[in-house]
Amino acid sequence: MIDLYTFKTPNGRKISIALEELGLPYKTHAVDITKGEQFKPEFLAINPNNKIPAIVDHAAPGGPLSLFESGAILLYLAEKTGRLMPTDPRGKAEVTQWLMFQMGGLGPMLGQLNHFGHFASTKIPYAIDRFQTEAKRLLGVVDRQLASRDYLATTYSIADIATYPWLKTARDFFPDLFLNTHNITQYLHRVGSRPAVQRGMQVP
Amino acid sequence: MIDLYTFKTPNGRKISIALEELGLPYKTHAVDITKGEQFKPEFLAINPNNKIPAIVDHAAPGGPLSLFESGAILLYLAEKTGRLMPTDPRGKAEVTQWLMFQMGGLGPMLGQLNHFGHFASTKIPYAIDRFQTEAKRLLGVVDRQLASRDYLATTYSIADIATYPWLKTARDFFPDLFLNTHNITQYLHRVGSRPAVQRGMQVP
Repeated sequence: MIDLYTFKTPNGRKISIALEELGLPYKTHAVDITKGEQFKPEFLAINPNNKIPAIVDHAAPGGPLSLFESGAILLYLAEKTGRLMPTDPRGKAEVTQWLMFQMGGLGPMLGQLNHFGHFASTKIPYAIDRFQTEAKRLLGVVDRQLASRDYLATTYSIADIATYPWLKTARDFFPDLFLNTHNITQYLHRVGSRPAVQRGMQVP
Repeated sequence: MIDLYTFKTPNGRKISIALEELGLPYKTHAVDITKGEQFKPEFLAINPNNKIPAIVDHAAPGGPLSLFESGAILLYLAEKTGRLMPTDPRGKAEVTQWLMFQMGGLGPMLGQLNHFGHFASTKIPYAIDRFQTEAKRLLGVVDRQLASRDYLATTYSIADIATYPWLKTARDFFPDLFLNTHNITQYLHRVGSRPAVQRGMQVP
């Protein structure tokens, strides 16, 4: 059994999608970040960085294993099951490359765009333009990668599971960014048609 | 032989440090991002995301392997050699957790602070304050993690190699962020004393 600490965000959905794809039994604990529940001592004991998602795998060898950072959890689950990522060095490197692209680029930049575009108390054109331009550039990289393939790496993997919820959410919030990303549109349909993805996107 | 495409940045230095630690033979190719060399077609063929670092491992099984994203390269090198990261699931998860913390949190936030604090054409107090506050918070997480241990994970690993160049550079540029981070100060001395780290920080 895996305890999943999560909320209705792209990073949270990565893990529920992966768990659904893998058919691993898990129990969802909603951490309501709109109420500051991520700062409760019992959650900070699992993730001192006060962010969802986090897991505790009670079936880990050597006893319960706490883990935070969505990218680390995805790698752990893929290696635990031998699924959603090739096991040969070349295939694995291709997947981790696109996983890191999401973790270090697409995620943080779309996150900042969302902040400055929607949540910031004052509208700052310079910052909105900066993150809009960078988001468009990154979406262009993704769209070109998908021109000749169905998934980011050679086969469906944790790189797609990391990227899909961010692209899906960004398209809902910032449709103008997606005017020239025909390959991403098809990709969102392709990945979004998977029953496990649909279930994972409803958690919590 | 590994071709390393890099420049004088924290992300670039991660890979030269790792290669020096591992004693792997490599050839450095400086990609001068101040002159836009990352947009040359021959570099885009290696990294369509036009960012350093990238590598081509000519000794990979199955032929030359191109790889971008510093975090993916670090994982690849650690798995290739069986060093700088434990091989058991628990130890590996702990290292990837802190590696992802650097890739998705510390790196992007310090990067934005550097942009808005140093490079932006206009000073925007809201943005500077936002990224300063988040950088301080993240440094606090690191400092508390280092209170009871010498390295981010249980042993010296690619998580430290990913984090050191960012902390070192941030302390040089934003010393005020480090007024209450005594454990980080000691950590910077500890990691920075390693000959391989010193050599890697000089590349290119």
